[in-house]
Amino acid sequence: MLSKAVIKYINSLQIKKYRNLHQAFVVEGAKSVRELLASDLEIEKLFLTEDFLQKHSDALRKGLPYELVTEKELVQAGTYESNNAGLAIAKTRTLPALKVSENELIIALDDIRDPGNLGTIIRIADWYGIKRIVCSETCADFYNPKVIAATMGSFTRVSAYYVNLPEFLSSLPSGFAVYGAAMDGENIHKLNLKPEGVLIMGNEANGLRPETREHLTSLIKIPGFGQAESLNVATATAIIVDNFFRQVS
Amino acid sequence: MLSKAVIKYINSLQIKKYRNLHQAFVVEGAKSVRELLASDLEIEKLFLTEDFLQKHSDALRKGLPYELVTEKELVQAGTYESNNAGLAIAKTRTLPALKVSENELIIALDDIRDPGNLGTIIRIADWYGIKRIVCSETCADFYNPKVIAATMGSFTRVSAYYVNLPEFLSSLPSGFAVYGAAMDGENIHKLNLKPEGVLIMGNEANGLRPETREHLTSLIKIPGFGQAESLNVATATAIIVDNFFRQVS
Repeated sequence: MLSKAVIKYINSLQIKKYRNLHQAFVVEGAKSVRELLASDLEIEKLFLTEDFLQKHSDALRKGLPYELVTEKELVQAGTYESNNAGLAIAKTRTLPALKVSENELIIALDDIRDPGNLGTIIRIADWYGIKRIVCSETCADFYNPKVIAATMGSFTRVSAYYVNLPEFLSSLPSGFAVYGAAMDGENIHKLNLKPEGVLIMGNEANGLRPETREHLTSLIKIPGFGQAESLNVATATAIIVDNFFRQVS
Repeated sequence: MLSKAVIKYINSLQIKKYRNLHQAFVVEGAKSVRELLASDLEIEKLFLTEDFLQKHSDALRKGLPYELVTEKELVQAGTYESNNAGLAIAKTRTLPALKVSENELIIALDDIRDPGNLGTIIRIADWYGIKRIVCSETCADFYNPKVIAATMGSFTRVSAYYVNLPEFLSSLPSGFAVYGAAMDGENIHKLNLKPEGVLIMGNEANGLRPETREHLTSLIKIPGFGQAESLNVATATAIIVDNFFRQVS
């Protein structure tokens, strides 16, 4: 059974301040808990239902203790509307210093506020084998429960670095390719893109900030054939990243 | 001011049964209301705030009456958490019979349950100039307020036909290309795709149904370079449709 103190602790981790304080975050649901168990992330507490144990006993880590709980308790403690699987408190990662290589594609996000968008972009990055995302400090928090949920387990394989984005961009070696997505860019279908450099996606409503644009070496766009004014930023990221990977496919 | 009867009517339109009964649906927020006003859809009732009138007076239809309301009233009547713009009750479309042409790409959805996914796919279709979507009867309802919201106005330009999908597929002329997206398909980066035929996207969790698969002429997939198990279905639709349109770009 979940004690009141534990429920209070789990609830507090919905807030960034307390996640930072405790260096911990919450993982909910069968898919995410399975991926967490299979990862190298440290697990502080693990709460599982009888149902999860029956279906996913193969996923357990040897020697890692867990407590048996009910679906009702999980819903009460967590953010999901239903959860008949499990919930874990995991330790946040200490990231090594960010060193960029010219041979990899890094996604940089300029003020992406919506947790669902950030989570979906992390999942897309994982699909294409991109391990690192650079986020402006105003982006949604990587460990926000809605971000974790939207990654569908990819939070275990992709890391996010929160930086002053214009400063990060000006620190890049000269000759480094910096792509920005914008309506006035070049048609990605006409370019020979390779998955190298930095691809910057801008805010949901306002696009790239002027101080970010200053550092671009190329402006690129997804050609439109209809009348929609724009695409969702996660959708746009997926299409552009796919275009970068065509040549290596 | 919104009367109790009007609020009750608007609330009832959150439910498909009442949308069918009244042949009406609700449109909320500045972007969607603007797009509705610019479309040929019939508007039954229009409720606008002072703020909307100040910013978007250019968008009004000549001679179309509206009532002035407050943000508080809009939130009370509608589904949005905030809405300082407007809300409209519009009449659902009577669609002409569905006739397919070999020269267009039609998106078909096999049991896409999530309204946000359906709405996002409608927005993607609109971006690429695709006017018609075919939905299995178990898909989310086109006029669901969450679908309308996610389309970001594209509900005015794209139509959805609800059909028995296997029957629809078997009625297609022979030689018609029918693509299905699945993990065991051919790499879309290696194919010369043209925007012609039907592209079928399957259920969020279960993919294409066997009775749908029977009718495919090609199985296609998005190549993965990392370890994510899957992509969100709207994300996947965007990437695949973009690949279909490269040749005409």
